[in-house]
Amino acid sequence: MKIVNIKEIESRVVDMAGTYKVKKQIPISSADGTPAYSMRVFTLEPNGYTPYHSHNYEQLNYVIEGYGVLVDKDGHERPLKEGDFALVMPNEYHQYKNISDNTNFVFICVVPKQYE
Amino acid sequence: MKIVNIKEIESRVVDMAGTYKVKKQIPISSADGTPAYSMRVFTLEPNGYTPYHSHNYEQLNYVIEGYGVLVDKDGHERPLKEGDFALVMPNEYHQYKNISDNTNFVFICVVPKQYE
Repeated sequence: MKIVNIKEIESRVVDMAGTYKVKKQIPISSADGTPAYSMRVFTLEPNGYTPYHSHNYEQLNYVIEGYGVLVDKDGHERPLKEGDFALVMPNEYHQYKNISDNTNFVFICVVPKQYE
Repeated sequence: MKIVNIKEIESRVVDMAGTYKVKKQIPISSADGTPAYSMRVFTLEPNGYTPYHSHNYEQLNYVIEGYGVLVDKDGHERPLKEGDFALVMPNEYHQYKNISDNTNFVFICVVPKQYE
């Protein structure tokens, strides 16, 4: 059993093409012995975004704080706010954007442990 | 892609032996086509609790609101509060308790889709 608070977890800048003002924390991963899935937390600073891309695994999200958009496979921007859950399917194009000028957009992203 | 807010999801009383004042919501599950894992939300009303039990699959948690305890395999009560993540391993005994008299204890519980 592991218990850790979000405030205690190291936050690292994500250095990936197509990413702007994004930090990542990893509360639960292979390092903790998770059998199959990991939990990460992404913080998109004001006007930050992740790449518009797809991959062969799904993502399960929960928005902890702030608001933004989740761009879908057709390029449509779907609002995403605190208390929202999202499921992005394998191979589905997607992008997260913080559309605020002054608040962070913080969300959980659950993925197979092979990818974290 | 599915997006749903926690306030829009039906909440049902959990009718399971050893459970007291617990409600469940299911934002992401097999019904949504999730490939492998589901997300549920449990709300433990004041003094509510889940059974002290174990099962052959893990649970990944995030505490959305309130505070309580997560009882471990040795019966020790470990504090659990808003912003905490927890990993309960397969076959590990555990129990969630709301130790507040007046606030709800609300947390996400990620499990393999076969169990939800």
